[in-house]
Amino acid sequence: MGRRVAVVLAGCGVFDGSEIHEASAVLVHLSRGGAEVKIFAPNIEQRDVVNHLKGSPAEEKRNVLVESARLARGSIQDLAELKASEFDAVIFPGGFGVAKNLCSWAVDGKNCTVNEHVNSTLQAFHNAKKPIGLCCISPVLAAKVFPGCEVTVGQDKNIDGRFPDAETASAIAELGCKHICKNVNESHVDKANKIVTTCAFMCKAPLHEIFDGIGTMVQEVLKLA
Amino acid sequence: MGRRVAVVLAGCGVFDGSEIHEASAVLVHLSRGGAEVKIFAPNIEQRDVVNHLKGSPAEEKRNVLVESARLARGSIQDLAELKASEFDAVIFPGGFGVAKNLCSWAVDGKNCTVNEHVNSTLQAFHNAKKPIGLCCISPVLAAKVFPGCEVTVGQDKNIDGRFPDAETASAIAELGCKHICKNVNESHVDKANKIVTTCAFMCKAPLHEIFDGIGTMVQEVLKLA
Repeated sequence: MGRRVAVVLAGCGVFDGSEIHEASAVLVHLSRGGAEVKIFAPNIEQRDVVNHLKGSPAEEKRNVLVESARLARGSIQDLAELKASEFDAVIFPGGFGVAKNLCSWAVDGKNCTVNEHVNSTLQAFHNAKKPIGLCCISPVLAAKVFPGCEVTVGQDKNIDGRFPDAETASAIAELGCKHICKNVNESHVDKANKIVTTCAFMCKAPLHEIFDGIGTMVQEVLKLA
Repeated sequence: MGRRVAVVLAGCGVFDGSEIHEASAVLVHLSRGGAEVKIFAPNIEQRDVVNHLKGSPAEEKRNVLVESARLARGSIQDLAELKASEFDAVIFPGGFGVAKNLCSWAVDGKNCTVNEHVNSTLQAFHNAKKPIGLCCISPVLAAKVFPGCEVTVGQDKNIDGRFPDAETASAIAELGCKHICKNVNESHVDKANKIVTTCAFMCKAPLHEIFDGIGTMVQEVLKLA
């Protein structure tokens, strides 16, 4: 019997939603691992809509659940309906949408607030000792909600210019968490909290290395589930 | 030196653009194959915008190049600027956007017209004897532009309910082309025309099998390049 895994999205597109290739990689690895997957997203307006061609805000409104449905090929539910009791694990792909729509990290950094349904989802899986997988910027959700936990967002220094957002590691430490330095092809397992993280696009790396790193995160989540 | 490969997108989302997981799979496999990739899309309005949550048309307008930029993480160019002389191969992922924005197959079937820049791109690579990779519904582009070529869109019968769009194979035959029946984990190589096709989401299959099938297409394209 495959593990039942919930995947939580934040829109569709790196600059205002879920990072598309991270979300797809999570789903490919879950499929290969024989998991039964259901996809969720909060039914809220996006914090902003970014024209990904120009890299600048667009004058329009989009809904996180509706746009996430593009990644889910229409098979998606409101995050408010997610019951942790029906799943063995939950995974949050990254992308700026996590820091804009699932919490306010993009604006408030470590003083961010977390969407109520994202918060209750994380708490429910954690309380039930079910594993939580996160990649890219998503580990800040765990750092905010579970002080003292261990996560990685890659390196804490911008080594060779490959980790331009290395200061995120310091913000995680300031939240009372332990940042573990890892490369793009690795993930970190916080065994006590059953939190599995990998840096994905926080590292400038070839796409297949990011894909493989996400694979290690998904495999560790399935092992713990 | 890696092969230089152009990838042509049709928007972002299965029902009105490029199928997201197919596009991502193409890019992952190209990355693993060491290819240098540039991404293109036509700078035109989408034929429609589909609310992927409801599966119904939305009252708004979106641009194919701007939405494709979500898949390209902003690194994308107008298809009108693509010079075949600068590349060793071209690949078209699938999705309804191919049949709506790159040609009019979704409305006109085998009597469709093909976007002028899509047509000139296909002709330029074909004339230069450079390989063309296509998946899902994209093979109809080759069938329309190169009568007599061989392509696969999976099976010509809806075996076990896994090929609900099997009649596409008949339409391809009516265009004077040869449809080759293949499974989701296989691709077909038309050696004379250097056209490589795989059925991808034309088959109802687990995502990792679709991913792997696209991998065989990308690898054959790189071999021919």
